[in-house]
Amino acid sequence: MNISKYILANICHPPEYGKVEFINHALIGLDRSGIIQFLLKPTDATYQEKLKQAKKEERLIAFDDSKLILPGFIDLHIHAPQWPQAGVALDSPLYDWLDNCTFPLESKYSNPEFSKEVYNNLVDTLLAHGTTTALYFASANKNTSLSLAKICAKKGQRAFIGKVVMDNPDQTPDYYRDESSQSALLETEDFCKEVEKLAQNTLQGIYPVITPRFIPSCTDSTLKNLGELAQTHNYYVQSHCSESDWEDSYVFNRFGKSDAEMLKSFGLLGPRSIMAHCVKLDTTGANIFAETGTSIAHCPISNAYFANSVLSVAKFQRLGINIGLGSDISGGFSPSIYDNLRQAVIVSRILEDGVDSSLPSEKRGKANSRITLAKAFWHATVGGGQALKLKLGLFKKDYSFDAQVIDLSTLPTYGGFDNQDSLWQKALYLTNSPSIKAVFVQGKKVYQNQL
Amino acid sequence: MNISKYILANICHPPEYGKVEFINHALIGLDRSGIIQFLLKPTDATYQEKLKQAKKEERLIAFDDSKLILPGFIDLHIHAPQWPQAGVALDSPLYDWLDNCTFPLESKYSNPEFSKEVYNNLVDTLLAHGTTTALYFASANKNTSLSLAKICAKKGQRAFIGKVVMDNPDQTPDYYRDESSQSALLETEDFCKEVEKLAQNTLQGIYPVITPRFIPSCTDSTLKNLGELAQTHNYYVQSHCSESDWEDSYVFNRFGKSDAEMLKSFGLLGPRSIMAHCVKLDTTGANIFAETGTSIAHCPISNAYFANSVLSVAKFQRLGINIGLGSDISGGFSPSIYDNLRQAVIVSRILEDGVDSSLPSEKRGKANSRITLAKAFWHATVGGGQALKLKLGLFKKDYSFDAQVIDLSTLPTYGGFDNQDSLWQKALYLTNSPSIKAVFVQGKKVYQNQL
Repeated sequence: MNISKYILANICHPPEYGKVEFINHALIGLDRSGIIQFLLKPTDATYQEKLKQAKKEERLIAFDDSKLILPGFIDLHIHAPQWPQAGVALDSPLYDWLDNCTFPLESKYSNPEFSKEVYNNLVDTLLAHGTTTALYFASANKNTSLSLAKICAKKGQRAFIGKVVMDNPDQTPDYYRDESSQSALLETEDFCKEVEKLAQNTLQGIYPVITPRFIPSCTDSTLKNLGELAQTHNYYVQSHCSESDWEDSYVFNRFGKSDAEMLKSFGLLGPRSIMAHCVKLDTTGANIFAETGTSIAHCPISNAYFANSVLSVAKFQRLGINIGLGSDISGGFSPSIYDNLRQAVIVSRILEDGVDSSLPSEKRGKANSRITLAKAFWHATVGGGQALKLKLGLFKKDYSFDAQVIDLSTLPTYGGFDNQDSLWQKALYLTNSPSIKAVFVQGKKVYQNQL
Repeated sequence: MNISKYILANICHPPEYGKVEFINHALIGLDRSGIIQFLLKPTDATYQEKLKQAKKEERLIAFDDSKLILPGFIDLHIHAPQWPQAGVALDSPLYDWLDNCTFPLESKYSNPEFSKEVYNNLVDTLLAHGTTTALYFASANKNTSLSLAKICAKKGQRAFIGKVVMDNPDQTPDYYRDESSQSALLETEDFCKEVEKLAQNTLQGIYPVITPRFIPSCTDSTLKNLGELAQTHNYYVQSHCSESDWEDSYVFNRFGKSDAEMLKSFGLLGPRSIMAHCVKLDTTGANIFAETGTSIAHCPISNAYFANSVLSVAKFQRLGINIGLGSDISGGFSPSIYDNLRQAVIVSRILEDGVDSSLPSEKRGKANSRITLAKAFWHATVGGGQALKLKLGLFKKDYSFDAQVIDLSTLPTYGGFDNQDSLWQKALYLTNSPSIKAVFVQGKKVYQNQL
């Protein structure tokens, strides 16, 4: 076994749904590609021998007890071109927000300089917030979407990127639309090939994603063509599904069927498909997701503004649907998966307890809806990895060493009061970017906090 | 008019409920006590003359266009001794959380060293998050509660502080309880006098607050005595009111009346009273609040964990009740009023839209419940000031110059895209402590970010 790097650190991860494991002084061996070859605890028989070897070979990176290493977070839904409007116009109705803010902004990504400026800043920001993997909606512009892929490749973030397809003249503005169904397909094919070419020279993986914006934005033929393209090449697919009352009823009105049924009929659902939001997914839709292995990207901050309801994470998890977390910049304002993980816990409790205090408690909410902090941690890590069919989110043999180094001394910790159980909870609830000292993707340091 | 300091800056504040004013290159004159004597816009007749004078007298503090000055935030509800458990055990039921976490922790504040360590760190943290005024629950220990007052006085934060009273043996543990109703009253009287003495040597104001923990923790005679004490001296009063299903039903079971009715009957409601949560306040209770001039400290993060429902800010605001925001450390995990301001917007939308996606939209939530970002800004500033009967939260003649300097260059801002309207929204939605470069209380710089 060829070990190129050893890590000695206090680590914490969610090995099972709802469980958190905290290991002091774990010794982790990585191969040349940054994949974990072993993880030893101090009580393991070969620990001392390996530690001696690591020191002798001068291949040991050791973190002291003021640091806690968490798995990198996975953002399963983020609109990269919307970064300049993060936090802006969230009081507007969806239509105003799309027509007067989002579409005009996204159309600016025909400009390569503006695109590079924004995308560089966004990827830096995500890494500084511990997001080691992101599934991006780029814009409808193929060339600058490629430039996002190049920026991620260069900065070392693992990225899944789609050129957005939107060709339905009824639901997209003249100035921001694919020219035709045919050109949308050709550009998507080109984009995927070019990303795959780029990916050959990256360690951490850069992947193309088939990305119909959502059913309303696309014509029938385009949806069908994209489904076939995805199936032919086994490409990843992302879109929005049953986000809101409006979207849900739009699809019913156009097809007489639900979003999930239509996405399936177009060949857009499967184990490599990730659908954002799904707040209005009904039982039929949920069964389709479970059967096809489609994952949900849960975006709890965004949902408060645009989804008209709360996703029942607990219910869908019980039905066997895999769920990760997304920031949904800029439907959500925060680039931080920490903020979304906290919000996932919060909204699950509001769903359980209900909102209308004039009702008796038993009529107010939906029982058994809350998720714990440990479960939210799992969705931010393992859930995202499972959605992307990669071994991510755990410190475990054959998993990628994607990690964020938390400086516990920046959090309110007190000797004699804190223990492992309080430390991981504080790390998840109180970490903001200044507490993240370094970030690794596949064993390579991609961010160092200069503070 | 004697001006001791001039500020030249781009400023932003909420002059009316729901409105935000953004003034470029405002010139603000402060007297020796840090009270605003004038605010001039570049178009005002005397602006150039005053600016010239300020420069000539070398009394000008000028901020460039990369900075935006916001009013300091007011935290209307925070349990200072609970800071070490921020973010911990929030998955526990209220009773576990109180009996196994909170009461044992608060009882440690008989230790002066531990108290000082925690309180120093907490006040530093709040200032670094832009909180210029805080209304604190300290602990039941009089001496270390006084030490919190001294720390605030020294660090320059405006503080309202209560020694917590809890003498009901049925609802408090043996190891953490006032010895008797009489000692609780005497210690409270002492505490108030000592804080008033301390306050004589502070510029920004340090105020004592009558603080029965909540009705369940106190005996009838204590509640009555504290009400009389407050009325005799016109002291501020704080407590919890109608926080949760449990609290609400406890008070009904004990007295056959609601929390609001009982607090009023004990003389604990009035224009200087601030009651935390009030999520379950009914129409009778709301009318009592409006008539007595009692304010609500809205703690939206905490409420998701412990209140079983959502406060209808919009409804109570329409009824004429004044509302500010509170972090409720550690029922809420975040020390940031920014986080609570954002959460206030989010939960108001969830209240309006409802949570159960299987219901039709018209049966799901409560219409007309959402509040805008501008309104949340008002609650974090002016609402807090009105609760405390001080001129806080605006840049306006006779108001205290309490301010936070936001470095817009740390936020994703783009020339040609951003304007005043997007900048203030980004400042409110995206600022975390690293973006706050300096904080002023009553004209005096109390925090400088060293990054």
